[in-house]
Order: sequence, then structure tokens, then C-alpha cells
Amino acid sequence: MNKPAIEFWYEFASTYSYPASMRIADLAQVAGVAVQWRPFLLGPVFKAQGWHTSPFVIYPAKGRYMFRDVERICESQDLKFKLPPLEPPQNGLKAARLALVGERAGWIADFSRRVYIANFAEQKDISSDVILTEILRNIGVEPATAFAASNLPENKEGLRKNTEEAIARGIFGAPSFTVGDELFWGNDRLEQAIAWAKK
Amino acid sequence: MNKPAIEFWYEFASTYSYPASMRIADLAQVAGVAVQWRPFLLGPVFKAQGWHTSPFVIYPAKGRYMFRDVERICESQDLKFKLPPLEPPQNGLKAARLALVGERAGWIADFSRRVYIANFAEQKDISSDVILTEILRNIGVEPATAFAASNLPENKEGLRKNTEEAIARGIFGAPSFTVGDELFWGNDRLEQAIAWAKK
Repeated sequence: MNKPAIEFWYEFASTYSYPASMRIADLAQVAGVAVQWRPFLLGPVFKAQGWHTSPFVIYPAKGRYMFRDVERICESQDLKFKLPPLEPPQNGLKAARLALVGERAGWIADFSRRVYIANFAEQKDISSDVILTEILRNIGVEPATAFAASNLPENKEGLRKNTEEAIARGIFGAPSFTVGDELFWGNDRLEQAIAWAKK
Repeated sequence: MNKPAIEFWYEFASTYSYPASMRIADLAQVAGVAVQWRPFLLGPVFKAQGWHTSPFVIYPAKGRYMFRDVERICESQDLKFKLPPLEPPQNGLKAARLALVGERAGWIADFSRRVYIANFAEQKDISSDVILTEILRNIGVEPATAFAASNLPENKEGLRKNTEEAIARGIFGAPSFTVGDELFWGNDRLEQAIAWAKK
């Protein structure tokens, strides 16, 4: 019998994906559920909904609430939380391409968590090669090789395909979790998604 | 010392307010927290965000997800859930005005729960006088008196004020819960709001 599994759909600019990324591995392991990390881009998803940027920017009341809500969530998980100093949303394109390289090489989870910490706890610019190089070094990955692999056409295409698949499967925000056709949206649905995988 | 309290902001057309309305009284009672039921209208709130109707209508992917999500939630609470046969969103104006009468008279919670059941479990038209009359009778309230009170200018004004206060306090969706300045959005934040009230 196959081990039950969930797919974790995330974008590096997504605030709620940060606490989700920090707890999914432990929660899934305790439950005996495998996690497939599936980075994608929210930009095209938002565009498909008629938005030119994050809904938290378009709707200020929602943006203010989101900040306080994530602050409370991070407090409960003992995570630092500080919005990056740059205009939101952050550009997670390079990081997402690198993550796909890490998926094949086995370091995607560790890399992704560190990108989130850099973005939302350390206020670093995750679109910067310097920052990404530092993160790769810290997890023992040779940066030049990883960057080269991330810029191969088939790797870029892989990220586009993830994003297209996300839209095709009804995903409209991050983080999302899928178990077959069953979709769960939001950090607060993680436990439910894991439980569903075990059904 | 005052009993800890939360304010429950809801709109009768809001799907997620349905499961919240069905569980808030019991949860709060067990926790020793008082609940102030605060009906308001989402129409003006959405208008302030540039929407002409419910975001679940504007964004189909979100609407489809919402239906399945609420279906799962209702299943877990042993609640029936069927979208009303009418074009969404339903018109909860009359019901909200009646609810305010019930706030003064002490039957707002019972009335509100029954309006939600009529709307989301029994597929009844909650903008219909016949349906609302039936609900009032079932909770032992004289319909003619309640309708007359609901149509008084000061009662209509009361609902407008609730809605204005909701917007002023940063509310952008329903259900929402407030404990002083602390805002919690969504049925899934109810437990957190109650815990906050006891801090």
C-alpha cells in the first residue's frame, strides 16, 4: 500500500505559507503522511482573477488584518514575523526555480523553510542572488551549480507547469493543500488536509 | 469584574456565518464568555472594497472552493448544507432588521440560527415575509409587532450603524469576531476569539 500523501502548494511571497512551511514536515511525519512540496507563482493566479497584485495590497482592510492575524499565528508557533522592508509582494521567482532544483536533489524542504525565514523573519530580499547564495551555502548546496540548473529552460518550464496545474486544479491562493481532487486552502486547513490523506 | 465577552458580526447571506452561528452559543457558554450578536450587511462592506456582489460570485474558483469547504465543515458539525435555489447572494436585509428587534427583546440568537437553517439547510427564501413570519411564530414571537418594530426608522438606522461600525473597526467579511480592538475573521477563528476574550 502506498503511504498517504498530500501536496503542499506554496509561493515564497505568501505570508500564510510561512507558518505552514515551518510546521508541515513535523505534522505530516507524526501522522505518517508524505509531503510533496510544490512551489508555484501566485502572480498568474491573481491575474486570472483580475488582480494586478496581491489582494492584501488591493484591499487595505484585508491587508491590515492579515498582518495581525499572521503575527498572532507566528507568536503561537514561536516564529519571528516581520514584513520585509520592500514593497509587497516580494518576488519569489528565483527562489521558486531553485526550489524545483532542490525537489530533484532532495533539499527542497530545507531550502524553502530558509527562504521563508529570510523573507519574513530576517527581512532579507529573497529576489537577491546574494541572499539565495547564502541560503544554498547554509544547507550545503553548491550555489553556482544550483543556479545554473535553475535557469535551464526545462526547469523554468517546470515552474510554469506547476502554476498551470495549480490553476487547473482550482487553486486560487497559498498555501493550498491537495489530496487527489480534494482542495484545502490556508494554513489553518493543514491539519484537516493531513487527516483527509489518511482517510 | 465583568464577564469576558466577544462580539459576533454576521450577515444572513454569508455561508461561513451559518456554521459559526450554530456553534458560537455553546462554545462561549462552556468558556464562560458572553456573546453579543451583531448583524450587519456585507453589501456596503463589499462596495467599499470595489465589489458589486459577493467575492464568491466574482471569483468562481473561490466560490467553488467555498462551497466544498463549507460542505466539509457542516458535515463535521452534523449540519445540513444546501445552497439556496436563488441567485447568490441572498438578501438578508429584512432578517437583519428583525434580528435587531430581537436583540432588544432577547430572541436574537434563536431567531438568527433559524434564519440560517432556513437559508442554508432548507433552501428557503429568507427575504420572504412568509418565511420570516413562520420563523418568528416558531420562536413564539408575534410577527406583526416584530415586523412593525423592524421597520421603524430608528431600527433601520441601527442596522446602518452596525454596518458603519463594522467597516470602521476594520471588518471586511463575515463572520467576524471582535474582542475590543482585536479582530478575528472567519468561522475557523471562533475558538481563538473566545480564548482571547478570556485573556
